[in-house]
Amino acid sequence: MDEFSLIDEFFRAAALARDDVALGIGDDAALLRVPPGVELVAALDTLVAGRHFPLDFPPADIGYRAAAVNLSDFAAMGAEPRWALLGLTLPDAERDWLAAFAAGLADALNAAGVALVGGDTTRGPLTVSVQLLGTVASGTALRRDRAQPGDAVFVSGTPGDAAGGLACWARRDEDDPGLRHLVTRFSRPTPRLALGRALAGLATSCIDVSDGLVADLGHIAAASGCGALLDWQALPVSPELVAALGEARARELAAAGGDDYELCFTCPPARAGAMAAVAAACAVPVTRIGTLRAGQGVLIREADGSERAPAARGYLHFRSAGG
Amino acid sequence: MDEFSLIDEFFRAAALARDDVALGIGDDAALLRVPPGVELVAALDTLVAGRHFPLDFPPADIGYRAAAVNLSDFAAMGAEPRWALLGLTLPDAERDWLAAFAAGLADALNAAGVALVGGDTTRGPLTVSVQLLGTVASGTALRRDRAQPGDAVFVSGTPGDAAGGLACWARRDEDDPGLRHLVTRFSRPTPRLALGRALAGLATSCIDVSDGLVADLGHIAAASGCGALLDWQALPVSPELVAALGEARARELAAAGGDDYELCFTCPPARAGAMAAVAAACAVPVTRIGTLRAGQGVLIREADGSERAPAARGYLHFRSAGG
Repeated sequence: MDEFSLIDEFFRAAALARDDVALGIGDDAALLRVPPGVELVAALDTLVAGRHFPLDFPPADIGYRAAAVNLSDFAAMGAEPRWALLGLTLPDAERDWLAAFAAGLADALNAAGVALVGGDTTRGPLTVSVQLLGTVASGTALRRDRAQPGDAVFVSGTPGDAAGGLACWARRDEDDPGLRHLVTRFSRPTPRLALGRALAGLATSCIDVSDGLVADLGHIAAASGCGALLDWQALPVSPELVAALGEARARELAAAGGDDYELCFTCPPARAGAMAAVAAACAVPVTRIGTLRAGQGVLIREADGSERAPAARGYLHFRSAGG
Repeated sequence: MDEFSLIDEFFRAAALARDDVALGIGDDAALLRVPPGVELVAALDTLVAGRHFPLDFPPADIGYRAAAVNLSDFAAMGAEPRWALLGLTLPDAERDWLAAFAAGLADALNAAGVALVGGDTTRGPLTVSVQLLGTVASGTALRRDRAQPGDAVFVSGTPGDAAGGLACWARRDEDDPGLRHLVTRFSRPTPRLALGRALAGLATSCIDVSDGLVADLGHIAAASGCGALLDWQALPVSPELVAALGEARARELAAAGGDDYELCFTCPPARAGAMAAVAAACAVPVTRIGTLRAGQGVLIREADGSERAPAARGYLHFRSAGG
């Protein structure tokens, strides 16, 4: 079996038919039709075995997750995903593995209406790069750098669940619905595409929570030239996470655990009502968790009003020595 | 040092200013402006250490080559490259390595006028994915599947040189200009962008020679539903390759060695004169090396007129067991 037949056999199934694909898998490059009045949106995320997912992660979940983390970038921009390219490096061309991987990838892409239009398959240590392309009406993209001091900070869902699922990975086969919920939040995160698109024109900034809430809110604050105060008691934690790991650890993971792919966003407090209506229309729970202010960095406000620095720095791929 | 500062420090240098970049490195996704009247062109290529380049390959050449092989895909489509995203997985965030890699990447991208607009840096075994985006006037892209029986087959440059350079890799520091030429053909291939764009409207099909001439001509023949006859004596071989490895081996590498990133293309014989004029205007040597015909597969015609199957299958990333 050579790389060409691999691609043909397993990935054409993910090549959803779209009118805007002039030429898909099989040539030197894909040819795509971009409608007028939009900006092209492009994101690329790489997942490395043993670093971004456990070595015994099911191949279908690897495929699903590789697509979902990129779709989440689009949610954070308020953008519409259209097309994907796959860079797949794997040690062996094992048929069962590839079939499961391709099915998981197609699950996530097709649910978002995205067509796989090309890519490259190579032999080597397991690494998955997904390149996602799409569009956003010109000038309406949600960015990180437009937040203002005084803006309220919100988060969707219950962050920390994915990190909790990973922490409980060894117990994933236990007959415990709460545990299975947490593990699924890690293995099959939900890109908040509808919420992201609904936030355009309403939110002043948006980011997806991949590095951890404190770290990602820090990215918004740094890009926007302000500081942030995170309200420790307001952090939404799921009953499943509290049941699995206890209240204190749950709150720590909500603040610092990565991989949730929830949206963290900001808007002036006057728009909080409109924001709540939009979130309700999208059927996504949204919680106000803090406020932006002049200055820099993210501090945490305890229930007694005191402020402290966050304990964890979130998920950084390259830590300083010893980190 | 974390991934964010890595990206900031080393890759912003490759973020060439372009009017069509609305938002570059630093957000969840890049925002790009696509002009009217074009199709979007997207290609992705992955290079794996020890598989696509030697483990002791200089980091500047890794960066250069990762960009060049993608630019070559654009040459083969007759397309204009505009923007790139980088998926970089590497074991350590070593400052000198990164500076050299980023400089090599920028050399290749900036020479083609391409801006680096985003990407993802992760820790793991050294793997480089470059995603290239650009445009082609609607309906004018060079494809693999439009060749016809009777078309003449051409190749640019002298294929086999890159494979010769790789074969001589261990002797690369010898004071031999011919050897250095071959090694450079491998480490810094020249994407034939001007030739590719000039071929639009003239060639019936085009592919870049990455898997080896026989294999890549086979891709054109298969996609176009015809066969091909390759004229063994007509294969252009460089004096440097013959000097390094002898006439017989040189011809074998010209037919089956990968990594050249020359263009292999077809046109009706009646257009051969126009083709020669275009090639001369681009200052790229072009040689007629065969003919398409009814049937399937690629055969080789010897000087005595006899036909034989090619000996080597070219460069396939996933060979069958024992291959």
